[in-house]
Amino acid sequence: MLQSHLSHFIRKEAPKDEEAYNAQILIRAGFIDKLMAGVYTFLPLGLRVLHHIECIVRDEMNALGAQEVLMPVLHPRENWQQTGRWDSLDVLFKVIARDKKEYALGPTHEEIVVPVAQRAIFSYKDLPMALYQIQTKFRDEARAKSGLLRGREFLMKDLYSFHTDEADLEMYYQRAIVAYTTIFKRLGLDALLVEASGGTFSKFSHEFQVQVASGEDRIVYCAVCQFAQNREINEAQDGDACPTCGKPLTVVAASEVGNIFQLKTKYSDPFKLQYTDHAGTSHAVIMGCYGIGISRLMGIIAELFHDEKGLLWPASVAPFQAHLLAIVPADEAQKKDILAKAQGVYDRLRAEGIEVLYDDREGISAGEKFAESDLIGIPVRLVVSAKTGERVEFKERAKPDASQVDFSFITQYFKA
Amino acid sequence: MLQSHLSHFIRKEAPKDEEAYNAQILIRAGFIDKLMAGVYTFLPLGLRVLHHIECIVRDEMNALGAQEVLMPVLHPRENWQQTGRWDSLDVLFKVIARDKKEYALGPTHEEIVVPVAQRAIFSYKDLPMALYQIQTKFRDEARAKSGLLRGREFLMKDLYSFHTDEADLEMYYQRAIVAYTTIFKRLGLDALLVEASGGTFSKFSHEFQVQVASGEDRIVYCAVCQFAQNREINEAQDGDACPTCGKPLTVVAASEVGNIFQLKTKYSDPFKLQYTDHAGTSHAVIMGCYGIGISRLMGIIAELFHDEKGLLWPASVAPFQAHLLAIVPADEAQKKDILAKAQGVYDRLRAEGIEVLYDDREGISAGEKFAESDLIGIPVRLVVSAKTGERVEFKERAKPDASQVDFSFITQYFKA
Repeated sequence: MLQSHLSHFIRKEAPKDEEAYNAQILIRAGFIDKLMAGVYTFLPLGLRVLHHIECIVRDEMNALGAQEVLMPVLHPRENWQQTGRWDSLDVLFKVIARDKKEYALGPTHEEIVVPVAQRAIFSYKDLPMALYQIQTKFRDEARAKSGLLRGREFLMKDLYSFHTDEADLEMYYQRAIVAYTTIFKRLGLDALLVEASGGTFSKFSHEFQVQVASGEDRIVYCAVCQFAQNREINEAQDGDACPTCGKPLTVVAASEVGNIFQLKTKYSDPFKLQYTDHAGTSHAVIMGCYGIGISRLMGIIAELFHDEKGLLWPASVAPFQAHLLAIVPADEAQKKDILAKAQGVYDRLRAEGIEVLYDDREGISAGEKFAESDLIGIPVRLVVSAKTGERVEFKERAKPDASQVDFSFITQYFKA
Repeated sequence: MLQSHLSHFIRKEAPKDEEAYNAQILIRAGFIDKLMAGVYTFLPLGLRVLHHIECIVRDEMNALGAQEVLMPVLHPRENWQQTGRWDSLDVLFKVIARDKKEYALGPTHEEIVVPVAQRAIFSYKDLPMALYQIQTKFRDEARAKSGLLRGREFLMKDLYSFHTDEADLEMYYQRAIVAYTTIFKRLGLDALLVEASGGTFSKFSHEFQVQVASGEDRIVYCAVCQFAQNREINEAQDGDACPTCGKPLTVVAASEVGNIFQLKTKYSDPFKLQYTDHAGTSHAVIMGCYGIGISRLMGIIAELFHDEKGLLWPASVAPFQAHLLAIVPADEAQKKDILAKAQGVYDRLRAEGIEVLYDDREGISAGEKFAESDLIGIPVRLVVSAKTGERVEFKERAKPDASQVDFSFITQYFKA
């Protein structure tokens, strides 16, 4: 993409009404815009990151044999009364429409997915079944001050699995853990599998937590055997002995990137979601649910991967693979030459299928171009200037040194 | 995709609470599920169609140089008061949150996109600019009985363009007409460009209308010179003379698939969206807006392309390119042979990059498989049975005759 065609949402200073670092840096670098507390617009660069995260999640959900659906945001009050959560869930946004009926804005979709699954589940032959969606969720949070980490409106992937028995759920649950591990690895994140309170039906639920200084959660963690529990179920202190291996525990700040629950029959019971077995006897369907905060992940990645100059996107989610800068001299003949060379590099990169943002802007100083490039944080910077001759300056955003390379080096780099 | 992995949402009968044909057939064929009036879940097959429509629209928006963003659903009351539409727009869903503030659920996004654009528009150098999104919209419709044609929650593409002057808007507006024409052509639709009431600021707005018996609009149309006006601005009768060419007009039922408006300064004025010209003087930014109903299009395509057996998707939006059916005999040895042959065809199709749904299910009669295939309406049906030997039966959904073909014929067909 030509940067001259990309609107300039970059700002000199971070907005004053933002406490959270992720929102400050993402707003300053032109990835998001704040509409109000916990509600953001994704600008062109930010939406590209969001789409990349979405694609990785979708990929692994499909590999897990889950079927993608899209359930509504508007939910009838009746569905939420059926499970008792109309009154008990304090983050539920409620709407009264012209028909005088009340509706909820979906904060999660158990109350909707169960009746949907009921359309296709009759006998054991229809199980297991897994449905997922990537959909905007709404939660009326009292304290929405953490940028993308705690939105009132946010993008989430939610997966629901349906089984004949607990053994089958357990098997799928383990496969989901593997899929989640793959997702976070692909996103460049080192996620811990953490035991957390399980609610009514199983001893523990599991959270995937990423260590980050600004994280809202506290995790009791053993670096030796990977034992990890949320502080809410384990009050150990730094240095206490790990209950599994006896080595000293540490308490670390972390932020949740995913959570998975064995729901068993908690939601199938109220909707009478049942199947018949080989003998024709009816049983309640056993369920699991598995969430990943897509927009939240973008915030966490921003919290983790930055330096004093700006963002450092992992290659898998970066808005572009390469940022090509033409350093345009004032001299007209030289200018023409540099722009022609840079255009040639741009065309060749695109022909190779490399996603590149080309800063073709004139009348912007080299210093400003370099500073904006560091702020945006695309992993590879390529420079064509009066100094680069027939070669291109190549620099990885995360590394200090630049070098002069041939075009073949660049294509090799992206193939590797 | 293996059909044994696709949940069976197909129903024997259309739901009794649906008046609209599009919803009846799409529910029966397992593409959507109704949650309540005007609010639907997109099931796996339906979501594939929706994504295909989305991709075509996104493609042409990008070709138009528009930048994709994603704006929120939750809007602050203040933005809507700024334009006076908080009180005047009767379809506005309103929410009161725990902070006692009121919010609207976005029915359109002028009130949000203008402040967003304001972040990047300062001088004439920042113009023209065009932002679009593909986002769920909410309208509290009094009468939501037309299935996907009039949802209370629906998916829309909305594009907003920003210009220094009316001449530049007019130029972009004409380019948008060309892009829209391309989109509808790619979707297999014959859309008419129709003049409609223009509101306050221009003589006419333009609608793209598709002739369909169940359409809610009436269009005064001249088949000779393509003159077309919405009945709301032209009360001509069948047979009246065309004002342009004098030939007889007809009045046809149609359904709107897109509309475009020259907003001029209607929304830039209330938010003081201005730019400075070469001389440093401030002027109001001139705007246009351009909508396409993505989920509505899916409904209109279902209304238009079907026969008594089921749906007939245009190839560009069909959930899959080909539907491969294995007709599995009872005899064990024969069964093994047929399933191996069908699997071979499936693997080769996928290797060729052809999106194929493979009905690998056992214990389903040939008659049932054929009937479900016709109902789902994938454009090409391929059959492997005891009768097909080393060849494959090939049949286009829209044509009556099947023929026995070699594999090479199939790949040639999809390359053409």
